[in-house]
Amino acid sequence: MKPGLPKGTRDFTPAQVRKRNFIFNILRETFELYGYQPIETPAMENLHTLMGKYGDEGDQLLFKVLNNGDFLAKADAEALAEKDSRKALPSLSKRGLRYDLTVPFARFLSMNRNELAMPFKRYQIQPVWRADRPQKGRFQEFYQCDADVAGSTSLVYEAELIEIYDRVFAKLRLPVKIRINHRKLLLAMAQFAGIESLFSEFTTALDKWDKTGEPGFVRDMESLNTDADTIQSLLQILRDGFDHPDTREKLSRSEAGKQGLEELKEIQLLGGWDDLYNPVAVDLTLARGLSYYTGCILEVEPTGFDMGSLGGGGRYDDLTGIFDYKGISGVGISFGAERIYDLMEEAGLFPPLSAAATRILFMPFDREDLIYARKWVKQLIDRGIPAEVYPEPTKLKKQFKYAENLQLPYVALVGERERKAEVVAVKNQKTGEQKDYSTAELIRLLKD
Amino acid sequence: MKPGLPKGTRDFTPAQVRKRNFIFNILRETFELYGYQPIETPAMENLHTLMGKYGDEGDQLLFKVLNNGDFLAKADAEALAEKDSRKALPSLSKRGLRYDLTVPFARFLSMNRNELAMPFKRYQIQPVWRADRPQKGRFQEFYQCDADVAGSTSLVYEAELIEIYDRVFAKLRLPVKIRINHRKLLLAMAQFAGIESLFSEFTTALDKWDKTGEPGFVRDMESLNTDADTIQSLLQILRDGFDHPDTREKLSRSEAGKQGLEELKEIQLLGGWDDLYNPVAVDLTLARGLSYYTGCILEVEPTGFDMGSLGGGGRYDDLTGIFDYKGISGVGISFGAERIYDLMEEAGLFPPLSAAATRILFMPFDREDLIYARKWVKQLIDRGIPAEVYPEPTKLKKQFKYAENLQLPYVALVGERERKAEVVAVKNQKTGEQKDYSTAELIRLLKD
Repeated sequence: MKPGLPKGTRDFTPAQVRKRNFIFNILRETFELYGYQPIETPAMENLHTLMGKYGDEGDQLLFKVLNNGDFLAKADAEALAEKDSRKALPSLSKRGLRYDLTVPFARFLSMNRNELAMPFKRYQIQPVWRADRPQKGRFQEFYQCDADVAGSTSLVYEAELIEIYDRVFAKLRLPVKIRINHRKLLLAMAQFAGIESLFSEFTTALDKWDKTGEPGFVRDMESLNTDADTIQSLLQILRDGFDHPDTREKLSRSEAGKQGLEELKEIQLLGGWDDLYNPVAVDLTLARGLSYYTGCILEVEPTGFDMGSLGGGGRYDDLTGIFDYKGISGVGISFGAERIYDLMEEAGLFPPLSAAATRILFMPFDREDLIYARKWVKQLIDRGIPAEVYPEPTKLKKQFKYAENLQLPYVALVGERERKAEVVAVKNQKTGEQKDYSTAELIRLLKD
Repeated sequence: MKPGLPKGTRDFTPAQVRKRNFIFNILRETFELYGYQPIETPAMENLHTLMGKYGDEGDQLLFKVLNNGDFLAKADAEALAEKDSRKALPSLSKRGLRYDLTVPFARFLSMNRNELAMPFKRYQIQPVWRADRPQKGRFQEFYQCDADVAGSTSLVYEAELIEIYDRVFAKLRLPVKIRINHRKLLLAMAQFAGIESLFSEFTTALDKWDKTGEPGFVRDMESLNTDADTIQSLLQILRDGFDHPDTREKLSRSEAGKQGLEELKEIQLLGGWDDLYNPVAVDLTLARGLSYYTGCILEVEPTGFDMGSLGGGGRYDDLTGIFDYKGISGVGISFGAERIYDLMEEAGLFPPLSAAATRILFMPFDREDLIYARKWVKQLIDRGIPAEVYPEPTKLKKQFKYAENLQLPYVALVGERERKAEVVAVKNQKTGEQKDYSTAELIRLLKD
């Protein structure tokens, strides 16, 4: 049988796992600094938990798990006969693979509502699955990295999450700009232009600004039969930008606009943006298409790279309503770990990470040497120093090849002379220097 | 909608994630000390990679993923009409969820055969899925933790893997005994008793020794029409045990037995068992039912707890043959992380792990305090000290409750007095002591 992988999935080699963990560890470390706690949810959820949460397209892209055993025995015979996949589905599959981390989190909150102390700050770093058409940089299994707070409307968390974005990208040495906006400012814009009834369509059109720019937005607004004057009044605000006094005045004409302005001011006050590593700016063209956002929204973009968003998030007033758990406000952010990886790889931002942790390889000439070397290895490992012995007394060339492949910093030659003198001949693989070491000396060398 | 989880799956709360990570981190750390490198493989594999690898029962227990889109359009209409699930399966599902980590590893090796330098030492800690009937302590999604070496027949690795078992359980402070045996000694026993043709059935019967003891073994052998004398000669060896001179003599009558004895002696020499934290002993009743083992086999049992094996492994001469990659010998071990968790929980072996990393909670009286406190939090976090502010100036009782829930060691009261004096009033939650601290003093306190 020819070995292969399903389309859209991939293995990770040791070098890749180490690079991915470099990113995940910085995320974890930063989430923990801010008091976020890890949870994990199962890969499979009940299909009825997932269906209808991600729109029609999402329902299509969900991976469904076939019922076990004699699955056709309980299948909808009529639907099968009609070849009606949609109708047959509920009788063939009760479970699906996690599509994102937000719905499982809402489900988790709802199930544990009596035990969890609010506000509850959680982070979650787990794979999700989507049956998207595989293409370069897009996979059917990929990791999501989310931090969310549930059960508080305090703007402290918006400030905190902006700081988390800032700190993570500073640690990754990846310069970014953090764009923020407020759904209530978008509503105020729609009200100012007299298109409040088209609010949802307006935000969808605005969402394309990043991709197709002003022309795309105008085209979309025109297709909604919005008249030229209205579009012009929106464009004026968007071109002037948030800092223009006219903009502020226009937005503050409505109650929603006043609230949005007030909240952004408060977030800034709680956050101290001038103190951050990366610039933060209010950008009125930021819309975040998803309709469930109700408050502050944010997005991160790399500086100096032509690549889309590396993460986004926002406030949603009703996180758990779908599970009949009312009145829980949530605010959260997500990191696009796969894109961050690609970008860091492209820009050469990963620190040198060798393939194996091993610091030294012992190279035996014969069986006696092998037994002798194993004792040395054990002593090093006892002191927390990763060490290996080449498993067979074979040609030195082959043994050196092994050390080079794993980019090991030292090798130790072990022969009769070394055994008798109770030393090993240690070679620094970088400098080529070679010298005899006793156990104590070797431990000192490798402990540094 | 009432929130729920599929049967046999579960969420992990922060406290559980921390305990699980305590175990996983010790495993990772130890694997790395011995030069094992991490790989990851996708959750979904091609169904043809998985089917037929785990026996008929395994095929039944595999989770199959329904093809996407209009899956009935390409389904086998005849099989559907006949309600023949088995026949219909290949036309409805092309992918399945990972059932263990060994087959994916073999697939990985075969796909990357030209890039990987041998011997290749890998570890892998990932969930697997099995449609077993859910029961106490048995789940449909659970983690496997494997370390394997591919591409070398050296007994150094058997010695190394025994050491890894020993070291991991020492670090977990869980006393165990490590039982080892050799498939060639089992063959020698069968040859000695004249039942070489029943070798596979003999090992299957012996495999039950741990559960049903000698009577179970005898019953099974009788049902194979083995005569009483033969059974007696086997029992004599098993009762005498490995260290009895008679046993050695009997086993060394065959070529296989000589090899097995020789190899175990060499493994002991390479491993230095007297130096280990836990006892290692050759146990001739250890069989490891799986027929693919060909050399040394091993298993770990807790001492002083009536619980089965916490892990097992062995040498298999043909790891990747199913993928048409010949001549690759493998040896590996597996840790039963879920059982280890249950046992450590039961025995109270987890160190105290608080829910949140947060070291101090700032408690504001009003909005001004909140803004003031946020600045302190930021300074602490800048120095790597996890800190939080209670997000609203609410009743102190509620704020204290939050700190208690998260078992935070310190709280800092922030009011007008503190702001004016540029201090915070820090309370040690354990001792109840309260004292004013400047920023520098607080950093010093919490850095320890």
